[in-house]
Amino acid sequence: MSNLQEQANQLEQALRESKEFQDLKQAYEAVMSDEIAKQMFENFRETQLNLQEKHMQGQDISEEEIEKARQIVETVQQHDAISKLMEEEQKLNNVINEISQTITKPLEELYGAAE
Amino acid sequence: MSNLQEQANQLEQALRESKEFQDLKQAYEAVMSDEIAKQMFENFRETQLNLQEKHMQGQDISEEEIEKARQIVETVQQHDAISKLMEEEQKLNNVINEISQTITKPLEELYGAAE
Ligand SMILES: [Ca+2]
Ligand SMILES: [Ca+2]
Repeated sequence: MSNLQEQANQLEQALRESKEFQDLKQAYEAVMSDEIAKQMFENFRETQLNLQEKHMQGQDISEEEIEKARQIVETVQQHDAISKLMEEEQKLNNVINEISQTITKPLEELYGAAE
Repeated sequence: MSNLQEQANQLEQALRESKEFQDLKQAYEAVMSDEIAKQMFENFRETQLNLQEKHMQGQDISEEEIEKARQIVETVQQHDAISKLMEEEQKLNNVINEISQTITKPLEELYGAAE
């Protein structure tokens, strides 16, 4: 195994063991173990993904669709377990963004040096 | 420093020392040290970025712009130092994609488990 792959595996292990990932896992499992929360969350994710897909394909998104999505967001935000999960997702996103910024530093330095 | 940040730093160091990054660095410096190649490459990158930006903002891209971009790509591909650089960029992209797949495995497992 290359040193690069070994270091990537070690980082993956550290992420898996991190408080942020463990908190996310717990919040995710709490939602998934509640049938109503699970359905609400899956409905929310499906709506988000559909809108994202339409947006990326340059398709028009109707007023009704935007309004429906807005209502779904409002509803899930009021559900304690789901809003907790979304909060933990955001925290892990921040961690991953920081990691990503760290490991792409060599590229930034290389391409930035030309400015 | 958290174990996570320490592992990210070690991975960054491994990437910096990798053959793929060193080869990219060498290819980049070869292009940057040749005034004509440098200008061609920067013109190419600017054109790509402009088109990407327009695309992401949903702006129309004219036939002329597409044709101009196609010609620029053709020209830079025929320049040995630039095509070498583009090849090394592709190789490093592959490395970074592999790293990214490795470190997001915990998330994939968590969210995949619900299917
Ligand atoms: Ca420049
Ligand atoms: Ca390590």
